[in-house]
Amino acid sequence: MKNIIVGQSGGPTAVINGSLYGVVSESLKKSESISSVYGMINGIEGFLHGEMIEMNPLASTGELELLKTTPGAYLGSCRFKLPEDLSDPIYPTLFEKFNENNIGYFFYIGGNDSMDTVSKLSRYAKSIESDIRVIGIPKTIDNDLVATDHTPGFASAAKYVATTVREISIDASVYDNKKSVTIVEIMGRHAGWLTAASALARKFEQDNPVLIYLPEVAFNQETFIEKVKNALETTSNIIVCVSEGIHDENGTFICEYGSDVGVDTFGHKMLTGSGKYLENLVKERLGVKVRSVELNVSQRCSSSCLSKTDLDEAIAGGAFGVNVALAGETGKMVAFKRISSAPYVMECTTEDVNAICNKEKGVPINWITKDGADVSNDFIEYAEPLILGEVEIPMKKGLPEFAFRK
Amino acid sequence: MKNIIVGQSGGPTAVINGSLYGVVSESLKKSESISSVYGMINGIEGFLHGEMIEMNPLASTGELELLKTTPGAYLGSCRFKLPEDLSDPIYPTLFEKFNENNIGYFFYIGGNDSMDTVSKLSRYAKSIESDIRVIGIPKTIDNDLVATDHTPGFASAAKYVATTVREISIDASVYDNKKSVTIVEIMGRHAGWLTAASALARKFEQDNPVLIYLPEVAFNQETFIEKVKNALETTSNIIVCVSEGIHDENGTFICEYGSDVGVDTFGHKMLTGSGKYLENLVKERLGVKVRSVELNVSQRCSSSCLSKTDLDEAIAGGAFGVNVALAGETGKMVAFKRISSAPYVMECTTEDVNAICNKEKGVPINWITKDGADVSNDFIEYAEPLILGEVEIPMKKGLPEFAFRK
Repeated sequence: MKNIIVGQSGGPTAVINGSLYGVVSESLKKSESISSVYGMINGIEGFLHGEMIEMNPLASTGELELLKTTPGAYLGSCRFKLPEDLSDPIYPTLFEKFNENNIGYFFYIGGNDSMDTVSKLSRYAKSIESDIRVIGIPKTIDNDLVATDHTPGFASAAKYVATTVREISIDASVYDNKKSVTIVEIMGRHAGWLTAASALARKFEQDNPVLIYLPEVAFNQETFIEKVKNALETTSNIIVCVSEGIHDENGTFICEYGSDVGVDTFGHKMLTGSGKYLENLVKERLGVKVRSVELNVSQRCSSSCLSKTDLDEAIAGGAFGVNVALAGETGKMVAFKRISSAPYVMECTTEDVNAICNKEKGVPINWITKDGADVSNDFIEYAEPLILGEVEIPMKKGLPEFAFRK
Repeated sequence: MKNIIVGQSGGPTAVINGSLYGVVSESLKKSESISSVYGMINGIEGFLHGEMIEMNPLASTGELELLKTTPGAYLGSCRFKLPEDLSDPIYPTLFEKFNENNIGYFFYIGGNDSMDTVSKLSRYAKSIESDIRVIGIPKTIDNDLVATDHTPGFASAAKYVATTVREISIDASVYDNKKSVTIVEIMGRHAGWLTAASALARKFEQDNPVLIYLPEVAFNQETFIEKVKNALETTSNIIVCVSEGIHDENGTFICEYGSDVGVDTFGHKMLTGSGKYLENLVKERLGVKVRSVELNVSQRCSSSCLSKTDLDEAIAGGAFGVNVALAGETGKMVAFKRISSAPYVMECTTEDVNAICNKEKGVPINWITKDGADVSNDFIEYAEPLILGEVEIPMKKGLPEFAFRK
C-alpha cells in the first residue's frame, strides 16, 4: 500500500481547495489501495524542505468539509520552477523524499507553470523507472490552459466579475441625470476570458458594459476615446471593462503609458493599472466625470459568488485524478470535455501534460467583435452554463467560516 | 385623501431600496389614508423638473419584491443642497408642485446632507402653515448620523468589508513562506465605522488585520512603519486596514502626500488613494513585498453580503416612517434605539431632524486602542449583532436579478 501526496501551486482561486477536497476525500475512500494522504506545504518548494502534513485527521474534525468552500490555497502555494535539466541533483533529492514517505501518487493542483512541474516529475520518474504516478489537476481563474474546455476557478471568478460589474453599473447609474464613465479593470495579463465574462452582466441588449477590451487584440487609444464619446450620446452612465493586460499594436501595455501619472513624495513613479491610466485619459480628453475600479484579488478569492457548477467540477476533477492514477495513468492532466452546452454536459478526461504546460489559450479571435470592443454570442453560449448554481457557505456570526491551518 | 412622495438622495447603499420598499409597501397597505405613491426621480433635483413616477403598479409586476434586494438607488439620486434662505423662490415652487400632485407626505431617504433637505422643507412648511408632513429615513454606509444607534446600509457594508478582508487575508497567506504586507483602503472620509468593521474579520486573537487605522485619530507615518516592521516579526503576511480619510496631526490627508486632489460639488476634498500612498511608503522603507487593495464602490453596492438584520431594519424603518407621518409627525428622522445587544433588541423611534442634519458621529475615541492602531472590544460588541443573518437573492442564469427602471 502506498501513500499519496498532493500540493497546490500558483495563484489561488475560489475552488482550488475544492480540487484538494476532491483528491483527499476520494483517496480516503480508497483505503484498500491508499494508506496515508499527505499535503505538501507551499507546493514542491515546501516539500523540498520537508514541509508536509497528514490530511487524514481533517476528515474527523469537519475541517475537510469546510475546505470545499474555503478560498485561497489551504496548503499554501509556491511559484517554483524545477530545472529544465533532468540530471539536476534536485530530482534524485525529491524522489528520495518520495520513497522515504512511501509516496506512490503525486497530485499537483495548478495552472500551466504547475503543469510544467508535473511534466518534469513524470518524465524524470520514467527515466529512472520509478512507478510513482504524477497527475496534474487544473486550476486557474485565467482559463488559459489548452486541451481542456475550461479550468476550475474560472467560472467562479467569471461569476464574481459579472455580478460585480452588474452592481457597479447600478451604482454608476444613480446619478443618471449626469454623464459618467466607469472603467473596470479585470485580471488577465495575456488571456481575456475573465474580462469577457463581464458581458454576462448585461440585463438587455445595449446594457452596460457597453465596451469590453481584451488583450487578444491591439488596443488603440484614439478609437477608444471616439467610442466612449459615441456611447455617451445614447447612454448617460457607461461602464467600460478592460483587461489589465491590454496593449497597443506594438505590444506596449497600456498601463506602461501611465508611469508618469503620479509621483510620490520620494519622487518615485507610482505604478498605475490600465484602468487608472484610461481614467485619466478620458478625463483629459472628454472632460466628463470618470472613475476607475480595479476588481483586484477578490476576483480570485471571493467565496460569495461561488458557481456550483465550478465547485462540483473542481471536486469531481480531483476525485477523477485519484482514480486515473490508481488505474495506472501518469504524466497526465485531468481535463474537461464539453459534450453539449444545452443541456450542459461535461465529461472528465485526461490529456498529455507535456502538450499543455507552458502554453496559453486566449479567447478565440472570432469570438471578439470586429471592432475589438466586445465579445460575440459564441462567448456567452460558452460561459453561461459555467456560472450556473449557487453554493451555500457555512456562516458563523454573520461571516463565512473558512478552514485554515493552525 | 392625500398622496405620498418618496425620494432617495446621496450615495447608494445595499439596502437603500429596502427602505424604499418599506415606505412603498406600507403606504399601499394604508389605502384608507393614502391614494397614490409617487417616487421622485433623482431626488428633489429631479422633482423640481417634474420627474416622478407612480409606484403603485410595481406591486403587481413583482418589481416591488425585487426592490428589496436590489442595491443602488432605484429612483436615482442627487446631491442637491436647498438654499439656506427659506425666502428663496425655490420653496414656493416646490410646494406648488406638492399641491398640484396632492402630496400630503414627503419621505426622503438619505444621509446628513439629505436630512438638511428634510429640515428645510419641514421648516418652510411650518412657516407657511402647510400640513405636508416631511420625514427623513436614514441611510448611509458611513454610519455617521447622530441620534441613532446606527444607520441602515452600514451593517451590510460592514459585513462586506469583514468578509472581504477575511478573504484577502487568506489570499495573502498562500505564500506564507515569504513576507508580505497588504494594505486595504476602506471608505470613510471622516468617520471610521466601516474601517473598524474590518476587525470583525479576525478568526482568533492576533489574526489579521493586525493594524487598523481610523480617521478619528491622527496618523503618524513613522509610528506606522515601526508597527508594520514589528508585526512582520511574528506574522509573515500582514493585512493593514486604513480608512480613505486618515490624516496627520495637522489635518493633512495621507493621500494628499501622494497625489493631486480635487474638490467635489459640495466642496469636499476628493480623495485618491491613502492605500496606494502607504504601499509605496512601506516598499520604500521596508523593502518587503507590498500591495494595496481599494475596496471601492462594491462596499456600498454589493448584494452578496447583505445583512438580514440590516435589510429587515431598512424595511421596518421605511414602514415606521409612513406610520409616524400618518400619526401627524413632521420634521423628524426615523432613528434606531438599541434596547440591548445580547439579545439584540432594536426599536424604531423618531428624532428631531434639525438636531441631526449636517452633523457627523465618529467612532468614540475610547473604542480606539491607545496606540491608535486598533479598535476595542466595545466596537465588536456594538457591530457584531448588526451583521447577523443572510439574505437569499433571487438569481437568474447564475446572476442576481435586480429591479431597474426601464
